[in-house]
Amino acid sequence: MASSILSSSAKPSYSATKTPAPIANRLPPQNPATTTLPSRAAAPRFAHGLSAAAVRASPSARRLLALARPVRASQQQPPPPRRRPEYVPNRIDDPNYVRIFDTTLRDGEQSPGATMTSAEKLVVARQLARLGVDIIEAGFAASSPDDLDAVLAIEVGNAPLGEDGHVPVICGLSRCNRKDIDAAWEAVRHVRRPRIHTFIATSEIHMQHKLRKTPEQVVAIAREMVAYARSLGCPDVEFSPEDAGRSNREFLYHILEEVIKAGATTLNIPDTVGYTLPYEFGNLIADIKANTPGIENAIISTHCQNDLGLATANTLAGARAGARQLEVTINGIGERAGNASLEEVVMAIKCRGELLDGL
Amino acid sequence: MASSILSSSAKPSYSATKTPAPIANRLPPQNPATTTLPSRAAAPRFAHGLSAAAVRASPSARRLLALARPVRASQQQPPPPRRRPEYVPNRIDDPNYVRIFDTTLRDGEQSPGATMTSAEKLVVARQLARLGVDIIEAGFAASSPDDLDAVLAIEVGNAPLGEDGHVPVICGLSRCNRKDIDAAWEAVRHVRRPRIHTFIATSEIHMQHKLRKTPEQVVAIAREMVAYARSLGCPDVEFSPEDAGRSNREFLYHILEEVIKAGATTLNIPDTVGYTLPYEFGNLIADIKANTPGIENAIISTHCQNDLGLATANTLAGARAGARQLEVTINGIGERAGNASLEEVVMAIKCRGELLDGL
Repeated sequence: MASSILSSSAKPSYSATKTPAPIANRLPPQNPATTTLPSRAAAPRFAHGLSAAAVRASPSARRLLALARPVRASQQQPPPPRRRPEYVPNRIDDPNYVRIFDTTLRDGEQSPGATMTSAEKLVVARQLARLGVDIIEAGFAASSPDDLDAVLAIEVGNAPLGEDGHVPVICGLSRCNRKDIDAAWEAVRHVRRPRIHTFIATSEIHMQHKLRKTPEQVVAIAREMVAYARSLGCPDVEFSPEDAGRSNREFLYHILEEVIKAGATTLNIPDTVGYTLPYEFGNLIADIKANTPGIENAIISTHCQNDLGLATANTLAGARAGARQLEVTINGIGERAGNASLEEVVMAIKCRGELLDGL
Repeated sequence: MASSILSSSAKPSYSATKTPAPIANRLPPQNPATTTLPSRAAAPRFAHGLSAAAVRASPSARRLLALARPVRASQQQPPPPRRRPEYVPNRIDDPNYVRIFDTTLRDGEQSPGATMTSAEKLVVARQLARLGVDIIEAGFAASSPDDLDAVLAIEVGNAPLGEDGHVPVICGLSRCNRKDIDAAWEAVRHVRRPRIHTFIATSEIHMQHKLRKTPEQVVAIAREMVAYARSLGCPDVEFSPEDAGRSNREFLYHILEEVIKAGATTLNIPDTVGYTLPYEFGNLIADIKANTPGIENAIISTHCQNDLGLATANTLAGARAGARQLEVTINGIGERAGNASLEEVVMAIKCRGELLDGL
């Protein structure tokens, strides 16, 4: 588990996927206790209660043993918990560390019935900080004075927690305009690690019918607004090409290249309408990683809606393809069918990290 | 959409994934109305309000158009609904048709708080039949007299519905023993299309610690009980190697080969503990399809638990790899974290069937 949400990196002792070594390689065992159930038998015994001698004597027993893997009691001590790498906005020194970005207070709150008061949000934010999430998206300041409360940001974004003195990044959402960015900055500027997250749509259907802008205009706005956020003194700016899952690939590479040049530190790739399949979303992240000039100077992030029930799978496919920030919510709450769920994503990485390229 | 649950096979008109043809291939359009928004303009106009003439004249407009795909209004009539292939237990004549097997009344009922009376089960079963599911797993007869009610089976399993006179298969679950199989058969024997579903665990951890059987004993029991179910006169027998997701591959091929020989018509591959990742589960199905002798005489099925939030994704990965029966429940209810959800799986196939190898 390469996120610090869970401090133990013990793996289940039953390895379900590795092909067992051929039986010939295991007989006779050099250390019988490591290949049998040590608490069961004094003499080396294999699964099914056959003695090693009986196995050596019986071709059919050998064949059956070759078909069925013994349960091995783990003899290994769990490795020590991984250290959380020092926070640098556009770089993570541990290549397999994944940042957990919780947006329960912003996207999660858009779930029907999930609207919270400022006091309720503060309770949730404190718990998220205690849980150890790396980034808390605390609200959308421009939408209402209560939506991103500076008091919450200041309290949660300045209080070190736990042995490592962790302080989460506090992030405010804003559309790509000065008024929104000013409001977000006002809310988060007094925290230890402030971040502004700004977004604009990049799919043709959104640019044409919602924004009524040409692609060239959209690129110019994105570039200018990322630079503006940096110019306010915010060292950490996340940019999202909204509806990336349905955006033209070449256009995506182009706009991402431009915002990196303008100072974006994290590039968040949303499957806004929850329409992609896991291998498709994984390919999108891999393509962005392979084809966007300057991408080595930024963190790639996922934000997957759950309209087809695939948000968690898409998020994991994105991580496997190189995303190192994953946007999630508690219980997967969020707009429409919701988001990727924090607990599912974190537990999948914890339990199956070895199949996710060592995350 | 290759299941009959949804009768229309219309696709969204906005194709999100195909790379647009190079702009050079589209200019000048032979039929402008098919590449522009026909309701908007009399003269051929492209996305962003540029006329075709302006596009031809402007290199920068050409470049931008190459980066952003126009929205095309679909000119095509939706194809006629696909006919449900005639039901043959171990064969589907349409290679891309996927059978939907609903187990809300059996596995779903194991969800905390979801226990139903016989009368409530009858209401749900009638709705499932109206929805058009291919197979209804109606209960586990041996667990209690009410769990699989023969009255329900007889009513829902004999009443033709809709234009095609669809009658769902009614399936009863049973462990691999005569008493269970007798009880299941007693409950479903009077329906038009009865099925007995029998299961036994095949992972080493289950065989050794739960069943206390050797792999050879497990194979013998499975073979005998499938043959016994067929001998009662049941033409349709499903076999599940429980905990297949953690079973040894070679052993799986072996036991599946043996039960096919004994008369099993569907082989259901459960990820009983919800522990696999989508590509891993897809590989499992592909490996079974490629390596099990006689597999061409049976239908491969998926049954995915949702412990890591991946049940829907795993089910779709299984379908892509060749499974042609998918086990689901309404709202994904079921044991522990639940099952794959009927609505997510069906809508993913309906919306994205072209990316699931034409399902």
